[in-house]
Amino acid sequence: MLNVHEYVEAARERVAPEVWCYFEGGAADEVTLRANVAAYARWRLRPRMLVDVSEVSLATTLLGTEVSMPLGIAPFAMQRLICDEGEAATARAAEAAGVLMTVSTLTTRTHGDIAAAAPSGPRWLQLYVLRDRQKTLDHIAEAREAGYGAVVLTVDLPYLGRRERDLRLGFNNPPHDIELPYATLFETTPGLTWRDIEWIRSELDLPLAVKGILTREDAALAVEHGADAVWVSNHGGRQLDGVAAGLDALPEVVEAVAGRCEVYVDGGIRRGGDVLKALALGADAAFAGRAFACGLAVGGEQGVADVLALLRAELELGLGLLGCVSPAAVTRGHVEPTVPYDPVA
Amino acid sequence: MLNVHEYVEAARERVAPEVWCYFEGGAADEVTLRANVAAYARWRLRPRMLVDVSEVSLATTLLGTEVSMPLGIAPFAMQRLICDEGEAATARAAEAAGVLMTVSTLTTRTHGDIAAAAPSGPRWLQLYVLRDRQKTLDHIAEAREAGYGAVVLTVDLPYLGRRERDLRLGFNNPPHDIELPYATLFETTPGLTWRDIEWIRSELDLPLAVKGILTREDAALAVEHGADAVWVSNHGGRQLDGVAAGLDALPEVVEAVAGRCEVYVDGGIRRGGDVLKALALGADAAFAGRAFACGLAVGGEQGVADVLALLRAELELGLGLLGCVSPAAVTRGHVEPTVPYDPVA
Amino acid sequence: MLNVHEYVEAARERVAPEVWCYFEGGAADEVTLRANVAAYARWRLRPRMLVDVSEVSLATTLLGTEVSMPLGIAPFAMQRLICDEGEAATARAAEAAGVLMTVSTLTTRTHGDIAAAAPSGPRWLQLYVLRDRQKTLDHIAEAREAGYGAVVLTVDLPYLGRRERDLRLGFNNPPHDIELPYATLFETTPGLTWRDIEWIRSELDLPLAVKGILTREDAALAVEHGADAVWVSNHGGRQLDGVAAGLDALPEVVEAVAGRCEVYVDGGIRRGGDVLKALALGADAAFAGRAFACGLAVGGEQGVADVLALLRAELELGLGLLGCVSPAAVTRGHVEPTVPYDPVA
Amino acid sequence: MLNVHEYVEAARERVAPEVWCYFEGGAADEVTLRANVAAYARWRLRPRMLVDVSEVSLATTLLGTEVSMPLGIAPFAMQRLICDEGEAATARAAEAAGVLMTVSTLTTRTHGDIAAAAPSGPRWLQLYVLRDRQKTLDHIAEAREAGYGAVVLTVDLPYLGRRERDLRLGFNNPPHDIELPYATLFETTPGLTWRDIEWIRSELDLPLAVKGILTREDAALAVEHGADAVWVSNHGGRQLDGVAAGLDALPEVVEAVAGRCEVYVDGGIRRGGDVLKALALGADAAFAGRAFACGLAVGGEQGVADVLALLRAELELGLGLLGCVSPAAVTRGHVEPTVPYDPVA
Repeated sequence: MLNVHEYVEAARERVAPEVWCYFEGGAADEVTLRANVAAYARWRLRPRMLVDVSEVSLATTLLGTEVSMPLGIAPFAMQRLICDEGEAATARAAEAAGVLMTVSTLTTRTHGDIAAAAPSGPRWLQLYVLRDRQKTLDHIAEAREAGYGAVVLTVDLPYLGRRERDLRLGFNNPPHDIELPYATLFETTPGLTWRDIEWIRSELDLPLAVKGILTREDAALAVEHGADAVWVSNHGGRQLDGVAAGLDALPEVVEAVAGRCEVYVDGGIRRGGDVLKALALGADAAFAGRAFACGLAVGGEQGVADVLALLRAELELGLGLLGCVSPAAVTRGHVEPTVPYDPVA
Repeated sequence: MLNVHEYVEAARERVAPEVWCYFEGGAADEVTLRANVAAYARWRLRPRMLVDVSEVSLATTLLGTEVSMPLGIAPFAMQRLICDEGEAATARAAEAAGVLMTVSTLTTRTHGDIAAAAPSGPRWLQLYVLRDRQKTLDHIAEAREAGYGAVVLTVDLPYLGRRERDLRLGFNNPPHDIELPYATLFETTPGLTWRDIEWIRSELDLPLAVKGILTREDAALAVEHGADAVWVSNHGGRQLDGVAAGLDALPEVVEAVAGRCEVYVDGGIRRGGDVLKALALGADAAFAGRAFACGLAVGGEQGVADVLALLRAELELGLGLLGCVSPAAVTRGHVEPTVPYDPVA
Repeated sequence: MLNVHEYVEAARERVAPEVWCYFEGGAADEVTLRANVAAYARWRLRPRMLVDVSEVSLATTLLGTEVSMPLGIAPFAMQRLICDEGEAATARAAEAAGVLMTVSTLTTRTHGDIAAAAPSGPRWLQLYVLRDRQKTLDHIAEAREAGYGAVVLTVDLPYLGRRERDLRLGFNNPPHDIELPYATLFETTPGLTWRDIEWIRSELDLPLAVKGILTREDAALAVEHGADAVWVSNHGGRQLDGVAAGLDALPEVVEAVAGRCEVYVDGGIRRGGDVLKALALGADAAFAGRAFACGLAVGGEQGVADVLALLRAELELGLGLLGCVSPAAVTRGHVEPTVPYDPVA
Repeated sequence: MLNVHEYVEAARERVAPEVWCYFEGGAADEVTLRANVAAYARWRLRPRMLVDVSEVSLATTLLGTEVSMPLGIAPFAMQRLICDEGEAATARAAEAAGVLMTVSTLTTRTHGDIAAAAPSGPRWLQLYVLRDRQKTLDHIAEAREAGYGAVVLTVDLPYLGRRERDLRLGFNNPPHDIELPYATLFETTPGLTWRDIEWIRSELDLPLAVKGILTREDAALAVEHGADAVWVSNHGGRQLDGVAAGLDALPEVVEAVAGRCEVYVDGGIRRGGDVLKALALGADAAFAGRAFACGLAVGGEQGVADVLALLRAELELGLGLLGCVSPAAVTRGHVEPTVPYDPVA
């Protein structure tokens, strides 16, 4: 397969529709789901020529974690539904590639299992702040024990979005026939407020990323309440339909954060060039979920490894063709809106 | 059925084309009819995170009438054409849901019948100002007697729009084989002016909404001539084709009204998220006609109840995911045009 | 038939493709041909309510010629190719409707014939300024004799546009098998300049409209060189492909003319609402060619009459629904670009 | 055949897919490949009337080379893959038409062969600066000997773009079964910098065009480092996907160059009107590759001659219809963005 689009097609054919709906679908009319992909086309790259790019490196550091490229694996849940080895397969592929994996609270493998499968892979924990705060702390402690390097707090789940594909095909979320070691740590959080962020920040001795921010106002609040990273996300178009694509919300978040913490973005990544646009608009890294889910569904660990290799190759070639030797060399001037420039108008 | 789109499809299959044309069609090329639906896609929601939304209420008050949500049933005529019980079925579903129903002058049931069917439901009267002013006052008196809480005056019918679906399929408006208790109170009003509004305002001891406004100029005039509410509407795309969608005209009307009276909008509502956008752009409530006509055509009273329940669920979930606890909490900052934000440009 | 679209479809089926290509086609990729129609969708109407429109009149005066509506018949050539009676049929329908007909130099009937067929119809002459100036003056004299009320000088034909439909189907322009009484008066005019306009203006005792203007610069020059009307036109998309639609060029022409002479526009008229938009953007009248050619091809004189009646009915109803009692009452405020209004942005 | 589109279709049918992929395809999702063509539609022409255009000439001079029109043949490689005579056929057609041909380093005929085939045709050399500088100078000397009038240095190939059509169909670049006299002079150049441009400028006694510039910044640097022409190009959409169309990047380059050297553009030329838009936006000439490759594939030398004649005829007619007598007469005022003009907004 030559690109991620082909993995998307293949996964759709490989996995049973009543399961794949959960991985592929979005909320309501899926306007935001489609917008996530379409947003990249509204920006174009401005390549600089005659820069010495004979040595290009994608390596970077995210919240102190060294990674081989500024594209990570977003937390996607219940991986055993599409691959017997579940998160362990993903973890091994990520470890081999030196790529950051974010493990969902709704993992089908324990953090210990995952760590055992891929001991040296860079990994972070995605979690919810529970009404039972001690459970939250215990969860963090277990992940820390397993070597996880940071915590990604999901804040866009006061209620679960209404995903009509799941309803139509009868997908239960979570399903009954799958083991979820941390099922009790999954909770919608309608009462969660910034005070809870302050609390977890005060209890935590790991870096904290706040995931699910879509506005400049909340980005500023996240910084003020101690976030080490703001993760721009609409939850893969699965929560409130009609909100901005991740990439569309990124510029205002970057402007509000003003360099005070790291910024990430997810949603719609299909090409290395998409990552370049995210970097140019101010992201420190991008994350993809579905692209890797497709790899996992199609070929297990090898499938994830293949998708990682594809995207890395595109990203590395693209960086060089853009006239940049590293992610840090990509600036706002390397991208512009896709409209004709008219010095007269 | 999972959403209003499915009711739209089902109704089209259920009702005879030579009748359904009247409910579904618009004027001329139906540009405005389509624009009504398409307009919502030009705005996107800006959800705020970490607001305590553990208690969300949709209840509000419109011109003194208490309603369970800021979405009402727009006046649509001749309901017996698509359901034997006609307006009584709609009224019972609305009453059970605590939802405001606006009754068309071209109702196939008398106001008394409707009141008897659903004694406690919130209801308003849609009417025309007739050349015979006494008849107008008698009509209002009868509705008042039936417990109607406000009057909605239609002002966009100086002439009847040219609806080509009706002409093509031979639909007579109004048809001969249906009882219309107030047929004589239906009149196109080419000579109607703002002085007539002043007159009815002086005679009326109920709140007055002026329906059919599409410009800031007319919105200001409505306020100055005593309107208690300005109802932005293009008559479901059935009058002058090529005018603005309701939602597109809403911002300039809200700006002109400047808080001096209530503002409503109708046209194209298919999702709870559409109502959120209308609220964010300054409407106190939105109204839907076709969505409920589809419910009525598909399942009578139960069909209307189902559509009401669907839209309420979407609206309630959406409000929470937007970070709001009530309709009043939705502000202009919760919506923005659907274009990428570029701090450089 | 209910609208002009249906006449367009019917004409395409009625007339042989190797003839109809000439009437329907445009130059090169037909970008401008399509733009002529599409341009109207970029503007929307702003209807005003509660204006007394109980008496609406479409009548107006164009360069001193009284007409029953501000929509005329643009000069289209060789009408006998699609109707045996040719221009006489069109002239009779126009006379009956009180509508202005512009007669092409490439008419298949003499001006005398046309005048005999419809003695009281308002008519103007479309002509070219020839290298042989005396012939030009003789042509004008003959038309004046036949009662024509003004001269429309075509200035956008320095060379004939390349129309690929004609080339593909072997249409000869002009064809060999048809009588063209003024064939020798048809000439491409690459050497024509504004000095020629001054000359004809000085020789002419009829009003002069300059047809084929698409820029503010040329509109200003036309006024300065004595034009009584500027006719915005791209020759039906048949000359240079890729230029502005008539409606798109209208606003800058109106601005440049600044009331110093009349302004007309042609191209793409399919609905009465299209004429309303042209009036609102500052045109004194609009002209349609293909719409009437379709009527002529479908039903001869009666077909033209039917299309005239259809467009008049749409225009009259539209004027009333817009809140205007006459063409002169339509202002720039009755139209706006088709984009959402956002008081915040 | 009536236009270039028909040659594009015919070539696709004529040449084996596993070869044609190389000539037709672009990088990745081919967004930029499509953008090259689509960009022209975003500008429209503003024709001026009543200019004396009885004598129109397309002739111009590019870097001292006299050419019969401001449209040249861009360097496209390995022409023997689609025509036995390869570059010699193209050269003969170009010579007969007085059109500039740019010869690719990946030519399948030697510069001497080409010169022998078409001794008086205007020709330039496309080349790469090699790590082995002496080889570069020897290559230039050979071309100079063959009468080439300028050097076009390609600077957008630090790495070879990823062209998925080629990968899918197994096209080897370069293929094994074809003679490439200068294969050893083809090199990707990741270490090339502006200092190399300074060096070649200092060694060269021919004019130098720098090809592959897409930004104002690099355009300014090119001028500062001695370029005699800046050639705006994205390498036919075959290098980094997602960059600007040539035409979209042209205005900012023209602005940055500010008349200090010549400016060319390539990509997406299908019509004479496209060339007019490029001239109006400030280009001194446009270049087309695929259009001529299609001619070559369809009819060899005669095919190239036919495409040249077609485009020349369109360009000459278009120039006259635009109201210009020469390429130099085309100004920025002859083009505008394709959006409606609104003096109120």
